[in-house]
Amino acid sequence: MKATALAGSNIAFVKYWGALDPEAHLPLNNSISLTLDQANTLVTIEFSPHIGHDVVELEGRMAEGRVRARVVRFLDELRRLGGSGDHARVASKSTFPVATGLASSASLFAAMAVAGLAALGLAPSEREVTTIARLGSGSAARSVCGGWVEWVAGGRHEDSYAYTLRPADWWPLRDIIVIVSEAPKESPSLAGHAAARSSPCFLGRLARAHQHLALVRTAVLTRDLEALGTVGEEEALLLHAVTMTADPPALYWLPATVAVMRQVWQWRREGLPVYFTLDAGANVHVFTTPEHTPQIATSLCAIEGVQRTLVCQPGGAPVPGDVHLF
Amino acid sequence: MKATALAGSNIAFVKYWGALDPEAHLPLNNSISLTLDQANTLVTIEFSPHIGHDVVELEGRMAEGRVRARVVRFLDELRRLGGSGDHARVASKSTFPVATGLASSASLFAAMAVAGLAALGLAPSEREVTTIARLGSGSAARSVCGGWVEWVAGGRHEDSYAYTLRPADWWPLRDIIVIVSEAPKESPSLAGHAAARSSPCFLGRLARAHQHLALVRTAVLTRDLEALGTVGEEEALLLHAVTMTADPPALYWLPATVAVMRQVWQWRREGLPVYFTLDAGANVHVFTTPEHTPQIATSLCAIEGVQRTLVCQPGGAPVPGDVHLF
Repeated sequence: MKATALAGSNIAFVKYWGALDPEAHLPLNNSISLTLDQANTLVTIEFSPHIGHDVVELEGRMAEGRVRARVVRFLDELRRLGGSGDHARVASKSTFPVATGLASSASLFAAMAVAGLAALGLAPSEREVTTIARLGSGSAARSVCGGWVEWVAGGRHEDSYAYTLRPADWWPLRDIIVIVSEAPKESPSLAGHAAARSSPCFLGRLARAHQHLALVRTAVLTRDLEALGTVGEEEALLLHAVTMTADPPALYWLPATVAVMRQVWQWRREGLPVYFTLDAGANVHVFTTPEHTPQIATSLCAIEGVQRTLVCQPGGAPVPGDVHLF
Repeated sequence: MKATALAGSNIAFVKYWGALDPEAHLPLNNSISLTLDQANTLVTIEFSPHIGHDVVELEGRMAEGRVRARVVRFLDELRRLGGSGDHARVASKSTFPVATGLASSASLFAAMAVAGLAALGLAPSEREVTTIARLGSGSAARSVCGGWVEWVAGGRHEDSYAYTLRPADWWPLRDIIVIVSEAPKESPSLAGHAAARSSPCFLGRLARAHQHLALVRTAVLTRDLEALGTVGEEEALLLHAVTMTADPPALYWLPATVAVMRQVWQWRREGLPVYFTLDAGANVHVFTTPEHTPQIATSLCAIEGVQRTLVCQPGGAPVPGDVHLF
C-alpha cells in the first residue's frame, strides 16, 4: 500500500489558459508540451488503515490550507477509484523551485497519480492515468506521458486525456530553464484560469491557439525549431497579455524576465537558433540546439537578476521509484 | 514669415493605437489625454523664398531619412494651406528625451502647426489647428489643446479633431515621468499602429476602449483619481498586450519598466493613491496627488534602472515663443 513515482514537469508550446470546467480542469483548447528530464517531482504515497488522517508533506513542509485541501481532494479521487476508505501519507520532493511558474503542480499530480494508483493496486491504461492526473492539475495530464505530448481538450472527464505525439528521443532539443525567482508567485495559476475570461484578449487568444496547434504539431513532426520557437514565443506573450489585462490583472514578470526575453531576441538577430517561452510565472524557458546550449546557458547566467539555470532534455513518462521518501 | 511656438507633450488615459487611415492619422476610437507643462517642445519655423530647400534641424541635429520626410510632408501641408511655394527652415528643442515613448511627436507637430500657421500668417480656429496638427502625428491633435483633452475619432479629416474637456487648472494632479531610457525606441509608433491589427488582442482592446472612454470622461469631470488611474493602467497594459502579440511583436518594456509598475502596485497595496500608465515605450508615467509627489518621485529615483524623473502638472495650450531658435 506504499508506492513512489518520479514525474517530470513539462513546458507547453500551445498553452492551457482558461477552463471550460475549472473543477474538472477541462480546458478550452488542446495543448502541446514537452516533458522535461531534469525538473522532476518524486512522490511517495501510502494508504493505510493505521493512518488517522491525511498527512501531506510537500517539499519537506506540512501542507496547509488551500494547498493541502487540493491534495486531499485528489486523494479522495484515488480512494474512490480504489474503493478504499484509508487515510494516506504523502510526501513530495522536487528538483526545481515549486509554485514559480515551472509547472510543479504538473509533475506533483502526475507523480501522485502514478504512485497513488500503484499504492492502491490499480493498473489503469496510460490514457486513464492522464485523465486522473488532470483532476489534480490540468497540465499534470501531459506529465503522465513522455516526450512531445498533446492534451486533447475533450469536453467531459473521460475524453480529456493526453497522449505522446513523439517520444523523448525524437528530437534532441534543449530547454534551459532560467530561474529569476525561487519565490512562490503572487497569483496562483488556478486564480489566473478563473480570471482569464475577463480579459479583452481572451477570445482572440483562444482563436489563435487553434491555429497554433496545427503549427506546433507539424513543427514537432518535422523537427522545425524555427516554427516551434516562433509559436512558443507567441503563445507565451499571448498568455501574459491575457493575465495582465484580466480582472484582477496579474503581472508575473520580473525585471530579469524582460532582460532574458530581450537577450533571446538579440541572439536571434545575431543568427542564433534560440527561442523563449514562459508559463504563468517569472521564470523563462529558453530553447536551443544541443551545440549552442553551453554557451547560451553560461551567457544567461550573466544577466542581472538571473539566479541559475537548469538544462533539460526531453524526458520520459513517470517511473516508479525504488527508494521511498518515508 | 518666422514664428516660434512651445507645445506640451500629453499622456493618454484612453489610448490611440491602430488607425482607420494611417496616412491621415484617423484613429479607430476617441482618446482622452492630459497636456503636460514640463515636457515641452519649442519649434521655430521660417518660410522664405531665400531658402533653397527645406532645412530640418531636430534637437540640434539635421534630420534625415524617414524622420525628415515626415516633417517635409507636414511642411507641404502647411504650404498648401497658406498657398506658399517657399521652402522652410525648422528647428526644434525639447525638454525631455524624444522618440522614447513620451509623445515627443505630439509636442513637435503641435508646435509646428502653431508656429507654421503663424509664420504663414494664417489664423484658423483651434479646432482646425488640431486637425492640421493631426496630419503630422495623431496625438499632436491633443497637444494643440490645454488641460484634459478629448480627440474625437471622426471618420474623415475635418471631423477628427480635439477639444478641451476641462482646462489645466481643473484638477491639480501630478504626472511623474519616470525615465528608464533616453535611447530612441526600437519600434517607432507608426510601425506599431500598422502592425496593431495583426494582434489577436486588437479587437478586444478596441471594444474595451469604448467602455473606457465613458469611464475616463466621468473620472475627469468628477476628479476621481481611482477611476482615472484604474483605466489608465488597464489601457497601458492593453496597449502593450497588443504590441507584444502583433506581427512583428514589439516589447517596449525594459527591466526597470517592470520594476516601476510593480512598485506602483506595491504602493497601492500600502494605501497610497498612485497609478501608472505608459504609451508605446519603456518610460512610465506615474500619477498621484500633489502632496504625495515629492516622496514618490524620490523613491522612484531609487529603483534600479531609473535614470531620472520629470514632475509635470497639467499644462496649457501651445504658446507663441518670443525668442526664436535661429
